[in-house]
Amino acid sequence: MLTLDFHPTGRHFLQIPGPSPVPDRILRAMSLPTIDHRGPEFAALGLKVLADIKKIFKTKQSVMIYPASGTGAWEAALVNTLSAGDHVLMYETGHFAALWQKLAARVGLKTEVMSDPGAEVWRHGVRADLIEERLKADSQHSIKAVCVVHNETSTGVTSNIAAVRKAINAAKHPALLLVDTISGLASADYKHDEWGVDVSISGSQKGLMLPPGISFNAVSSKALEASKNAKLPKAFWAWDEIIEMNKTGYWPSTPNTNLLYGLNEACDMLLEHGLDVVFARHQRWAEGVRAAVRAWGLQIQCADAAVYSPILTGVMTPEGVDADAVRKIIYERFDCSLGTGLGKVKGKMFRIGHLGDCNDLTLMAALSGCEMGLKLAGVKLAGSGVQAAMDHFSSHSAVMPLRKAA
Amino acid sequence: MLTLDFHPTGRHFLQIPGPSPVPDRILRAMSLPTIDHRGPEFAALGLKVLADIKKIFKTKQSVMIYPASGTGAWEAALVNTLSAGDHVLMYETGHFAALWQKLAARVGLKTEVMSDPGAEVWRHGVRADLIEERLKADSQHSIKAVCVVHNETSTGVTSNIAAVRKAINAAKHPALLLVDTISGLASADYKHDEWGVDVSISGSQKGLMLPPGISFNAVSSKALEASKNAKLPKAFWAWDEIIEMNKTGYWPSTPNTNLLYGLNEACDMLLEHGLDVVFARHQRWAEGVRAAVRAWGLQIQCADAAVYSPILTGVMTPEGVDADAVRKIIYERFDCSLGTGLGKVKGKMFRIGHLGDCNDLTLMAALSGCEMGLKLAGVKLAGSGVQAAMDHFSSHSAVMPLRKAA
Amino acid sequence: MLTLDFHPTGRHFLQIPGPSPVPDRILRAMSLPTIDHRGPEFAALGLKVLADIKKIFKTKQSVMIYPASGTGAWEAALVNTLSAGDHVLMYETGHFAALWQKLAARVGLKTEVMSDPGAEVWRHGVRADLIEERLKADSQHSIKAVCVVHNETSTGVTSNIAAVRKAINAAKHPALLLVDTISGLASADYKHDEWGVDVSISGSQKGLMLPPGISFNAVSSKALEASKNAKLPKAFWAWDEIIEMNKTGYWPSTPNTNLLYGLNEACDMLLEHGLDVVFARHQRWAEGVRAAVRAWGLQIQCADAAVYSPILTGVMTPEGVDADAVRKIIYERFDCSLGTGLGKVKGKMFRIGHLGDCNDLTLMAALSGCEMGLKLAGVKLAGSGVQAAMDHFSSHSAVMPLRKAA
Amino acid sequence: MLTLDFHPTGRHFLQIPGPSPVPDRILRAMSLPTIDHRGPEFAALGLKVLADIKKIFKTKQSVMIYPASGTGAWEAALVNTLSAGDHVLMYETGHFAALWQKLAARVGLKTEVMSDPGAEVWRHGVRADLIEERLKADSQHSIKAVCVVHNETSTGVTSNIAAVRKAINAAKHPALLLVDTISGLASADYKHDEWGVDVSISGSQKGLMLPPGISFNAVSSKALEASKNAKLPKAFWAWDEIIEMNKTGYWPSTPNTNLLYGLNEACDMLLEHGLDVVFARHQRWAEGVRAAVRAWGLQIQCADAAVYSPILTGVMTPEGVDADAVRKIIYERFDCSLGTGLGKVKGKMFRIGHLGDCNDLTLMAALSGCEMGLKLAGVKLAGSGVQAAMDHFSSHSAVMPLRKAA
Repeated sequence: MLTLDFHPTGRHFLQIPGPSPVPDRILRAMSLPTIDHRGPEFAALGLKVLADIKKIFKTKQSVMIYPASGTGAWEAALVNTLSAGDHVLMYETGHFAALWQKLAARVGLKTEVMSDPGAEVWRHGVRADLIEERLKADSQHSIKAVCVVHNETSTGVTSNIAAVRKAINAAKHPALLLVDTISGLASADYKHDEWGVDVSISGSQKGLMLPPGISFNAVSSKALEASKNAKLPKAFWAWDEIIEMNKTGYWPSTPNTNLLYGLNEACDMLLEHGLDVVFARHQRWAEGVRAAVRAWGLQIQCADAAVYSPILTGVMTPEGVDADAVRKIIYERFDCSLGTGLGKVKGKMFRIGHLGDCNDLTLMAALSGCEMGLKLAGVKLAGSGVQAAMDHFSSHSAVMPLRKAA
Repeated sequence: MLTLDFHPTGRHFLQIPGPSPVPDRILRAMSLPTIDHRGPEFAALGLKVLADIKKIFKTKQSVMIYPASGTGAWEAALVNTLSAGDHVLMYETGHFAALWQKLAARVGLKTEVMSDPGAEVWRHGVRADLIEERLKADSQHSIKAVCVVHNETSTGVTSNIAAVRKAINAAKHPALLLVDTISGLASADYKHDEWGVDVSISGSQKGLMLPPGISFNAVSSKALEASKNAKLPKAFWAWDEIIEMNKTGYWPSTPNTNLLYGLNEACDMLLEHGLDVVFARHQRWAEGVRAAVRAWGLQIQCADAAVYSPILTGVMTPEGVDADAVRKIIYERFDCSLGTGLGKVKGKMFRIGHLGDCNDLTLMAALSGCEMGLKLAGVKLAGSGVQAAMDHFSSHSAVMPLRKAA
Repeated sequence: MLTLDFHPTGRHFLQIPGPSPVPDRILRAMSLPTIDHRGPEFAALGLKVLADIKKIFKTKQSVMIYPASGTGAWEAALVNTLSAGDHVLMYETGHFAALWQKLAARVGLKTEVMSDPGAEVWRHGVRADLIEERLKADSQHSIKAVCVVHNETSTGVTSNIAAVRKAINAAKHPALLLVDTISGLASADYKHDEWGVDVSISGSQKGLMLPPGISFNAVSSKALEASKNAKLPKAFWAWDEIIEMNKTGYWPSTPNTNLLYGLNEACDMLLEHGLDVVFARHQRWAEGVRAAVRAWGLQIQCADAAVYSPILTGVMTPEGVDADAVRKIIYERFDCSLGTGLGKVKGKMFRIGHLGDCNDLTLMAALSGCEMGLKLAGVKLAGSGVQAAMDHFSSHSAVMPLRKAA
Repeated sequence: MLTLDFHPTGRHFLQIPGPSPVPDRILRAMSLPTIDHRGPEFAALGLKVLADIKKIFKTKQSVMIYPASGTGAWEAALVNTLSAGDHVLMYETGHFAALWQKLAARVGLKTEVMSDPGAEVWRHGVRADLIEERLKADSQHSIKAVCVVHNETSTGVTSNIAAVRKAINAAKHPALLLVDTISGLASADYKHDEWGVDVSISGSQKGLMLPPGISFNAVSSKALEASKNAKLPKAFWAWDEIIEMNKTGYWPSTPNTNLLYGLNEACDMLLEHGLDVVFARHQRWAEGVRAAVRAWGLQIQCADAAVYSPILTGVMTPEGVDADAVRKIIYERFDCSLGTGLGKVKGKMFRIGHLGDCNDLTLMAALSGCEMGLKLAGVKLAGSGVQAAMDHFSSHSAVMPLRKAA
């Protein structure tokens, strides 16, 4: 057992933007004995989670549940809809958008990366007008898919997916719309059907509050149609067999049963609370955290208030301060994990997750850790972020009553 | 399942002075399948926890492990050593001392309550000099036992047990020394043998970081001698049969096996860390919390810095402010439980526990909740306690390295 | 962790008559974080389990839930209703009846032990006619209580409690009726109110399928009346304060919260299944086990078919065969725990528990272990008990459908 | 929670050939809080399981640990070593070999299926001589890989992998040897390096006693060399990035952390027991089960005693008896899951798993269920398999002492 090393004393504060802290209720559900994935109880479980996850994606169409982590679901979205050499337009909003592009190239697609040339690196969401312009220029319709990230986990910037769909339509372009909402789903509002997304990709370890190991593809009929002619080789990821088997609550390959117990419990929790309550809760937390960052006099990575992420906040450290040195102090001294700056922003920022099994005081703990760590690292702060966050949380009531005293 | 009600979102902050937050490692140990308490595996477990608990009490003598909560162990200490009508001297330092007196009277003892008449109510530890004086006056040796509380859970005041023993000796009085260290053991240093205690009483749900349900009597040879002539009826609590059966790792009546799994794990954790590290950790936390109370401009219930409790801090609310109204706000708005004022200090103070599965950021969370709640309740604060605690925790390194970054 | 030692490979078969195998669902409930036993969630839990346990005892009156094991509840029943030197009539049906008598004597009661002088030792239930006769002879009403055991865990013999009440009434005797149903409750039908029991004593680790650590006193108004004049010292066990505090869902001393989580879950399971289904299930298992014993050509400890226990079966080994040597083989070779012969039947019989988290195949496993072990110990068997049990279980459908195939 | 539906009473007997029953110790390890998969604790865990799993495969080379189930690892083995249209020789020993062929065809390989034309369907292992013959005929070396299954989960037939390697060498053929040991690893001996396997494929839910969700590729230097020229698109499955990242204990995509906690615990258990003890244990169980099948007068699916599977036994039902009807009775009446007949043997046989968290009495329970179910289904049995298994288990001591009585 490695448990002692994990818990010298007190519970670790896991404030990275995923894996998010998993509620005890889910951890316990996951520890029930594994059952026969070809038996009747399993079918009941399978049908239940397949129905629930549609509600979470706000779709009436099929959702694949893969026994694999998110990277696999990226690959699945591509190999089910595209053929070798197909041209895809990928908008780079941050590190995960960049990784997805790398993966697309690796499976044999011709990737075109676009971003706003005039903007600062990784501080803005997708500019739908640029996409529209690019698609209009593609009069041959050589572009087969547009790939965007809903919530950039590396920066704390969201993108307006409905606007992207509108842009594609305005350009009268047949390209598919593929959206990574790995960290957006179940924390920020997401409307697969209403927004006209063709493939939505997500994972278990963020808003769903599960450990990693499950990932998703939600599809449209257009995507399904495309899958019939897509030539990239696929077997494990192939939608057709999964959709067929799912009708009876089973999967063609072995599902990871115990994580499905957790998914079942997570869906119950989210739907019991109500998705709108869940989203409002994240918004409120995010505002508290941003109040802290502003009080410190530091920059929020997301430069556009319209697309602040409700799930995480990127905090830019001042010129000359290594953000990872700050994180290290907070980790070693205060037992709190924060997200590192990835790729182009490495060392320049750190990320505070405000998702999963979380509440106001969890965030106060994390912000205290940040404030102490920043000071210990020698950062001059304009004021107390902790104070600002307390002001915010006390002046804004919680979305849902937490406790009722007798 | 009541789990949803317990956890609307995020983990509850249980900052009462016991039951303390139980580490996951212990909760998991407790959920192992129950075994035959007359079988050989059980004997191994029994001998192990009996040996470990002696190290925790710092005694080489017998320790009874009762499958019952602390009140039972109070009763056990009395019925094993005394006879109906025996005169006992009980020093009232707070609510639990008062409850113990009530229990002693109820089982048929003649209780004499003493305290420092000149002192404010429940803000000081035992005055050993007053005990010495009283015992000297008892030239007939009618007093059979002196009962004191090591760490008053209702106030956050400790008492100097070694000084009490010295006082008894100085008075050349044969009275037994019975000590309640229910909340002291395993959080503050406790030396059953060295301090010359005759019966030490403790429980599982405080420094041992277990759920309630186990309690203890550590004994001396003088106490064992007394037990041979003690006439109060007893069976379940009787030491003689327990000590006899314990030789082989068993108990005369059914032990509560799954809590013993937890006790085994708790002892492992405490002894792996080292008791000195554990005690220093609590001291450091306590100092941080007291720094906060002072910065708020509020009074600490314990008026004597020499006997501040490392386990909990009593916070007095200003005249006219109902401490329970403050607690209610903190509970309902911020999902944090604090201890209520008990008995004579009801409504006048609340208690912050800093024990069990805890760390700096847990306390920062709790103090943030307190600061927000106090303000919301209309209390004028002199300054930010949260700021003061952050200053304390950042300028004092943790006792034990928490994490090591790669 | 001692886990490896407990589980070399495969799950141990715990076929002792308690502690019974605890369902995973209960073990998981018990591992939830401990909450404040003075907070509002606790009150909800407290009121819930207090209401549920009344349904299990089939009483509308108060039930004490003690954070202690069964021996304590024996003591509680006595000290709440009797005074020092009171004369109690105790019917010896087996080892636990004898232990209760020993405890009663130890707390200062005058115990009169009776049994059927003409009967074989410990093979029959209570003879109510003998009790009636004895009470009629007690014209001075010096006898204050009649104490009987509902299900003798040491022998597998039940007693007709309704008949005992009828006998007391027929004798027009005011003695209280105190009944130990520690292993009977929730496995065999028990009607506290209808049967006119004054104090029923039970524990958690048998039919309630919990680990040990909780015990009960169900009371009558006559018992409550008696408790006002009972002079035996008591505090921890005192009913009055408990009943008062229970009105709001709390207890005067610290309850063992995590075991109450388990009790809550156990009551849910039992009441969801329905008590009649639960009782019928135990009867069916018991018949299967007795069929096996008969096929082996061995004697069932209970000599009277009318009072066979549905909870356990005592198996007498032939003259010259040490029952404990048989048990040892079964334990060491086949990882199955059986109950030992206690007191007067030590070495002459062993006990098979058929209670708790159990099903037909669990019992087939246990009976296979017994049959192999008996043969390895050199016992000549008349035939295959395993075969007989299979015949029984296949020709008698389960009480409740277990699984439904798709 | 679906828990009640899963556990009406007693623990379900999961006797399918995987997912195998998961030990409590592993389930508990899996329920620990998820940690940051980019933090230092994770690296320690990663390096530990990477080192341990090599010992289990008996290899000094790299082992990929995929956060995906076994089908994914089949695909990974192919896409990392082969190019579109490559010719692979696949030996059909049963349903899983057939499924693997289907997957290989789907990812774009030219599959050649071979088997022994003169043999009964799916009752024999691989004939290495036929492979040698075929490879010798392939003078152009168009065959790029030979794919065989070590332990056919659908039949209970193993194949001699060392002999296949010898055959390839004898043919002086450069084809890679790819072996599916999904259900063989950690239950039957497996020597990746010594046997000269190029890619070994395995999964978590069989001998490793974990829930499904982890799968493996163990590789050779020849396979790594081949991977440099393999043209099938791949990203998630790509070995190169995994091997690179694994050096520091991390993975390029998100690992399924909580299942790795389980893997860590499983490796500890297996290596503490010793692999030889583990293998011998399975052999002994398998012999007991086969003794039962023979006593019933039924055929074992595996027609060749030299390659009986230690992990599962296929039981052929008599002509006219639907094996699935038998399974349904056993499931519904006796709460025991058995494996169905798959593909070409559907309805003609069922499978008894004897792996995972299992012991003699677990198997006696399962065999009792089978015997009762077969009779209830109207199958005439030659004799009692249960009796035969008891004879076997009592006359053959367990491989490892289970328990030691005091």
